[in-house]
Amino acid sequence: MTTKTMENLFHDMLKDIYYAEKKILKALPKMAKGAQSPKIKAAFEKHRDETEGQIERLEQVFEIIGKRPQGKTCEAINGILEEGEEVLEEYKGSDAIDAGLVAAAQAVEHYEMARYGTLKRWAELMGLSDAVKLLDETLKQECKTDEDLTKLADTQANQKALKAA
Amino acid sequence: MTTKTMENLFHDMLKDIYYAEKKILKALPKMAKGAQSPKIKAAFEKHRDETEGQIERLEQVFEIIGKRPQGKTCEAINGILEEGEEVLEEYKGSDAIDAGLVAAAQAVEHYEMARYGTLKRWAELMGLSDAVKLLDETLKQECKTDEDLTKLADTQANQKALKAA
Repeated sequence: MTTKTMENLFHDMLKDIYYAEKKILKALPKMAKGAQSPKIKAAFEKHRDETEGQIERLEQVFEIIGKRPQGKTCEAINGILEEGEEVLEEYKGSDAIDAGLVAAAQAVEHYEMARYGTLKRWAELMGLSDAVKLLDETLKQECKTDEDLTKLADTQANQKALKAA
Repeated sequence: MTTKTMENLFHDMLKDIYYAEKKILKALPKMAKGAQSPKIKAAFEKHRDETEGQIERLEQVFEIIGKRPQGKTCEAINGILEEGEEVLEEYKGSDAIDAGLVAAAQAVEHYEMARYGTLKRWAELMGLSDAVKLLDETLKQECKTDEDLTKLADTQANQKALKAA
């Protein structure tokens, strides 16, 4: 038996999502630039700003557990963002690009929802009530972003992609 | 303007998730083998069987759009599964392994929920009602699996990981 515990899991996942958020922060302006719809551009820019706050909250959680904020390569987000890059390249100048970009952004949101959901539950079990509040705030923001993207897809992107058919 | 349309997006994402499901099919037995809790092992094995059905449904969707079933490397699932492999290696023999494996599986489920949610919406807009039914069946299965994993984490894994602390 090794001595790994929930505290190790929590710290590892915190490093994973910290790396992920920093990568997302860099990817969102590229997605905003590539989008055609002004409302979708604005949504990506708004989420970029929210991501800055999410990174700060993660830094507070690191402080709560007495660790230095540190990222650890997250191959999941690297892969998810790579698929967003493919949409940017392969659908450049096409009426279908916005529908593709929103779908790519929703895959990012779902990854974050999974991770923050787990981190929040673990923080609850470890009795880290201040961390729970911080993680819950971000989790709610990710869920709201995903819902907003679903609406934006329908009002700003899907019909355009469909008519191009 | 290129001539890419929603049909291209749909076909590309279908190939992405087809590749992903086949990778998941191979990963689940490893996760079942690595898990300590018999109920979590059983959940991974059950979902492996469900994944076979999901692959068959994707093949039916390919047929509906008149395309040959074909996968396309999905870096997202490669990265997500790689993180599951890391848990298997780094938490081997530890009381925290099951909590880590369930979290890894939930990241997989969330990726699938994002993709099937988008594919179902696009199929609706393209009037592919038979495809909508097939995609919705899988989407519901993924959501149910995610909920089941949340419960299993709390009843079979989290307390054990916590007590190890």
